[in-house]
Amino acid sequence: MSHNTFGHLFRVTTFGESHGVALGCVVDGCPPGLALEAEEIQAELDRRKPGQSRFTTQRREPDQVKILSGVFGDDRTGGRQLTTGTPIALMIENTDQRSKDYSEIRDSYRPGHADYTYDAKYGFRDYRGGGRSSARETAARVAAGAIARKVIPGITIRAALVQMGPHAIDRANWDWAEVGNNPFFCPDAKAAALYESYLDGIRKDGSSVGAVIEVIAEGVPPGLGAPIYGKLDADLAAAMMSINAVKGVEIGDGFAAAALRGEDNADEMRAGNNGRPRFLGNHAGGILGGISSGEPIVVRFAVKPTSSILTPRQSVNRQGEEIDLVTKGRHDPCVGIRAVPVAEAMMACVLADHHLRHRGQVGDRA
Amino acid sequence: MSHNTFGHLFRVTTFGESHGVALGCVVDGCPPGLALEAEEIQAELDRRKPGQSRFTTQRREPDQVKILSGVFGDDRTGGRQLTTGTPIALMIENTDQRSKDYSEIRDSYRPGHADYTYDAKYGFRDYRGGGRSSARETAARVAAGAIARKVIPGITIRAALVQMGPHAIDRANWDWAEVGNNPFFCPDAKAAALYESYLDGIRKDGSSVGAVIEVIAEGVPPGLGAPIYGKLDADLAAAMMSINAVKGVEIGDGFAAAALRGEDNADEMRAGNNGRPRFLGNHAGGILGGISSGEPIVVRFAVKPTSSILTPRQSVNRQGEEIDLVTKGRHDPCVGIRAVPVAEAMMACVLADHHLRHRGQVGDRA
Amino acid sequence: MSHNTFGHLFRVTTFGESHGVALGCVVDGCPPGLALEAEEIQAELDRRKPGQSRFTTQRREPDQVKILSGVFGDDRTGGRQLTTGTPIALMIENTDQRSKDYSEIRDSYRPGHADYTYDAKYGFRDYRGGGRSSARETAARVAAGAIARKVIPGITIRAALVQMGPHAIDRANWDWAEVGNNPFFCPDAKAAALYESYLDGIRKDGSSVGAVIEVIAEGVPPGLGAPIYGKLDADLAAAMMSINAVKGVEIGDGFAAAALRGEDNADEMRAGNNGRPRFLGNHAGGILGGISSGEPIVVRFAVKPTSSILTPRQSVNRQGEEIDLVTKGRHDPCVGIRAVPVAEAMMACVLADHHLRHRGQVGDRA
Amino acid sequence: MSHNTFGHLFRVTTFGESHGVALGCVVDGCPPGLALEAEEIQAELDRRKPGQSRFTTQRREPDQVKILSGVFGDDRTGGRQLTTGTPIALMIENTDQRSKDYSEIRDSYRPGHADYTYDAKYGFRDYRGGGRSSARETAARVAAGAIARKVIPGITIRAALVQMGPHAIDRANWDWAEVGNNPFFCPDAKAAALYESYLDGIRKDGSSVGAVIEVIAEGVPPGLGAPIYGKLDADLAAAMMSINAVKGVEIGDGFAAAALRGEDNADEMRAGNNGRPRFLGNHAGGILGGISSGEPIVVRFAVKPTSSILTPRQSVNRQGEEIDLVTKGRHDPCVGIRAVPVAEAMMACVLADHHLRHRGQVGDRA
Repeated sequence: MSHNTFGHLFRVTTFGESHGVALGCVVDGCPPGLALEAEEIQAELDRRKPGQSRFTTQRREPDQVKILSGVFGDDRTGGRQLTTGTPIALMIENTDQRSKDYSEIRDSYRPGHADYTYDAKYGFRDYRGGGRSSARETAARVAAGAIARKVIPGITIRAALVQMGPHAIDRANWDWAEVGNNPFFCPDAKAAALYESYLDGIRKDGSSVGAVIEVIAEGVPPGLGAPIYGKLDADLAAAMMSINAVKGVEIGDGFAAAALRGEDNADEMRAGNNGRPRFLGNHAGGILGGISSGEPIVVRFAVKPTSSILTPRQSVNRQGEEIDLVTKGRHDPCVGIRAVPVAEAMMACVLADHHLRHRGQVGDRA
Repeated sequence: MSHNTFGHLFRVTTFGESHGVALGCVVDGCPPGLALEAEEIQAELDRRKPGQSRFTTQRREPDQVKILSGVFGDDRTGGRQLTTGTPIALMIENTDQRSKDYSEIRDSYRPGHADYTYDAKYGFRDYRGGGRSSARETAARVAAGAIARKVIPGITIRAALVQMGPHAIDRANWDWAEVGNNPFFCPDAKAAALYESYLDGIRKDGSSVGAVIEVIAEGVPPGLGAPIYGKLDADLAAAMMSINAVKGVEIGDGFAAAALRGEDNADEMRAGNNGRPRFLGNHAGGILGGISSGEPIVVRFAVKPTSSILTPRQSVNRQGEEIDLVTKGRHDPCVGIRAVPVAEAMMACVLADHHLRHRGQVGDRA
Repeated sequence: MSHNTFGHLFRVTTFGESHGVALGCVVDGCPPGLALEAEEIQAELDRRKPGQSRFTTQRREPDQVKILSGVFGDDRTGGRQLTTGTPIALMIENTDQRSKDYSEIRDSYRPGHADYTYDAKYGFRDYRGGGRSSARETAARVAAGAIARKVIPGITIRAALVQMGPHAIDRANWDWAEVGNNPFFCPDAKAAALYESYLDGIRKDGSSVGAVIEVIAEGVPPGLGAPIYGKLDADLAAAMMSINAVKGVEIGDGFAAAALRGEDNADEMRAGNNGRPRFLGNHAGGILGGISSGEPIVVRFAVKPTSSILTPRQSVNRQGEEIDLVTKGRHDPCVGIRAVPVAEAMMACVLADHHLRHRGQVGDRA
Repeated sequence: MSHNTFGHLFRVTTFGESHGVALGCVVDGCPPGLALEAEEIQAELDRRKPGQSRFTTQRREPDQVKILSGVFGDDRTGGRQLTTGTPIALMIENTDQRSKDYSEIRDSYRPGHADYTYDAKYGFRDYRGGGRSSARETAARVAAGAIARKVIPGITIRAALVQMGPHAIDRANWDWAEVGNNPFFCPDAKAAALYESYLDGIRKDGSSVGAVIEVIAEGVPPGLGAPIYGKLDADLAAAMMSINAVKGVEIGDGFAAAALRGEDNADEMRAGNNGRPRFLGNHAGGILGGISSGEPIVVRFAVKPTSSILTPRQSVNRQGEEIDLVTKGRHDPCVGIRAVPVAEAMMACVLADHHLRHRGQVGDRA
């Protein structure tokens, strides 16, 4: 069972609620001997941290990570900490738990939120800031992802926001260097400029908007993944769909592939110079039959607009009474933005897991 | 690990290759006491069976299922077989293993196929008809799905082909009754008429085309699924993505949700008459926070065009030599068609599993 | 995979080393709505806590548990915390990490310890106090067990030490009330008196001694467990064997059953007054075919003598040099004593897990 | 979940009832490229087959195994079949399903059997020959074990019966060559002679008797297993306890270790000549801290006497009425005998699984 765990050999179990004492994760199965310092994890967390621009929630959380176990160093390792092969527990204490009045949320079902479904499932819920259903949980994933990257050192994983609301980027403008130059993780400088004014407008309207994120992994060796229910694309789809507010996932051409004819879709091959085929296209997004082909793995996913908005909406409360609801508080007008580092982390965790699984079955030929 | 198993409490393990002795599955965790006859499974298999129209592969397989274990009946059950709670093994013998010449496939990597990636992973493969990577494996899923439906008797699961190549149906014409009236499982009679001539053209060109399938489950109680990695939508995404040739999955509005504003996307609620909220929309596709809301669950997925085509394509062989390749044989010009009953089966299996998982955690309140 | 996780629906993942920052666990799958306060967990931890008599290690650890997630209460619950159905993370900070000189342990392989095997597996280890292999990890299990007990409220679980070194108790003297009256968790007052002088002698010799523990669960309904690899006895055997230093596990008559004839071993039945059979014996230890019979579940296990002793032993170091080794420090002369509350916790976790699994498959009839 | 599956990377799922159509298993995760013919599996099955002497059940089953999937060979492999890395399904059809009158069993709860507990769990059962609870299921394990041995070619696994009823062998007489010379798998020729007359007496009395089996794996590299819940000994304990009628499991000295002092129990080490320590004893049975030490792994387990006996016993039936019961039919007077090849198979499967798990985490250094 895996309610709060994902992965098989590289396993991540997360815990924690938005306004609880702390959140974190236990990473089990990490190979031994990898150098790992809290600062490295922190660097990834800082990319996802709230309050870094006016376009993300103004909650002030330092998101300071603490390694509780699983690493060790002494004078023989030059003081550096190495993973020991035992579970690595990471904890992030919640500090900005503003003692606000939750009376409205606690009794009401916010449209688009998990309030009603949690009550339907559990009969009871921690309503403070969304409790377990808050996107705050993704901090733990980003922390785990920082470890996963060390398990697959030759693989480069990068994500970018490629659409905000109805506005897609111009792919001809794609420049990875731009991703760090704007608060949207957008690789198209022109689109980023547009998003700034567009999102300001959305924000001032008390509204919100969705987004599309693309994650690309380069340097993935062929052979990761497995038929039939350990398919790399199936695991990636589940991983991305498990991120808050995600409603769709594509690999390679995705839905566009449905409209193609066979001769246009099937990536042709020529002899490569490393003993592998050289693919003449990558409609497949780097995965054939659930197994990596050596081409870049390309995953795209859609994030719905943040459900917490200032526009009044019709709803009901726990007592079944009809109400009108406005969700105040500090919210992301486009929650898709902060999903970018989360997507990288999920990609890293899935690939680390499949790397270990593949190595288990076939050995270091993997 | 789950290379060939899916589900947790309702678990399905499949086996078999396209041209091996037999294929089948073991269904573990099925509740006891459910009436189950081979004929009921056969009825589902017959919907997926090849060779039923000129639009699917002309391979002639009776796909006759045999129940090897897990059911029992005697005079006290009126001769009816009931599930016993122990594993139900199902077997389908392969009969039409035409002794063709595989010399071309065995040495060549067909573009768009898993030939190269299987070799990259395993160093060796059963190349006959695609071996384990053949869509023939989905017969085992359909068989398992027939059992899953019995675990969740109040839930209606139906799927339909809603796009072939670039041609989407007109949703205003949607009529479930039409699905059985054409060889495409298409709910729009007009579109079906178009598909007939369109696909004939594709077939005559020696080409193939993709499709989009939609699966809908009605009558799902609220509460199925679980945060964070047992999300119903994440499991459904993995289930659909594990079907051969699938490249994208959406829940509810899917990618279209990215373009919406918050007030348009969040499904409002009013007081319902069964003690549950009545939702005024279903942009969410019946799932909020990974948990079912009681609204219909709506999943859509894209199938790429069949990679086996008569048009010559550039490729390489196992020796790394460049070749031109034509894939002869009996192929589906639109493999998406036969994915329709498979999608229903996967939906049924995922829901049966989550029903049992939910009941485990909260009891029959589930 | 389950390197640091056990259970399926009631899942416990532990983390932490003997001298790391903290240890703890994440309990996943706990049903919602159960009242749970840290004090209740603490009460169980205090039974296992070191330094409570001269017969256990003199390490001074308060073993103060902190609940990090998974519970919630407000004025409507009368301020009481209830489980929410989401993962419950528990943390115990290490405080008495005496900054001792580990140079001897770090280079040497202590006979009977996991020093060599950890190095053989991981090439690297946290040697401080045994690191992950220390029995200190069992504190996390005891904490998890306190939660498990709440999942199965009608079941009484008690354990006792029934043999120390070669000295077995007299079963005719068994009195559960005595277990709390001596530092050995011994149900036989006379044996406890003997153990006191016996263990003093062992301790003064700088030696150590083994023990046998018996755990009994009463009030277990029939039906828990499952053929074939979800057998209740198989899971209990793994659970007990996973406790540090355990070398044998028995159910019911255990090894003595091998010497019996069929007619003496098979527990006869008469009509009971609750619609269930009344068993005339319990050679089976409450489990038949891997499934509970309703009779008390009886498990016994053997703990080897503590390997850390003051008597010099021959060994080798990491460099492969031969050495003589004395293990100084604060050790339990009979580590079996503190295994008593651990055994209860493991029994509780296994039964809670099987209760949920059974309920999943057959519903509240469970 | 793992009701009918064991292992993680080398996974075995079994199915089938005593008198159903067929039984078998699916072996998932087997590495590719291993030569595997049905004859090799058959050879192992033949060692376990019933009806080979008057000391085992007279049921006549050829136990002919058929490989349904997961292997492939062509002219390039010299016609030899190799594993492909995909699931290997094995089937054994039941042939000797004597159409006997089951009316007695179907209504009665045989003491010592799982009849009552299956009914308590499932409310319904296949009573023919014990259904799923029959030791016949172990044929599937033996078949899987034959494959597992190929995954760990350097490891020698042998088992022997070391006690029948109260009569233990004389270990000074231990000769592996004798195991094949008597119908008891007994390594002590003198004891075997005794067992012959002893068991004849038991059989003529219409009684039965228990046994103790010892399994030894030699050539196991250090490093297999893992803290804390992936311990090699914990998995072995579960594996052996899952065999029908097993009531106790020991590793190394087992229960005798409880009576030892620390200095006598901890195996000392000297410098070895292969870069590993040379252990001066093996009280630990080859496992320290849950990880293999490189010494032979020694597991012993107790089998209770066969519950099916001709001596009348008191019982109740499904209707709750009190009855006297005699179990006629073809039974093993000492079911422990046929557990010997089963134990070897379970040892092989557990070691194969841990070999792959270890290799996954640390690579071919494993």
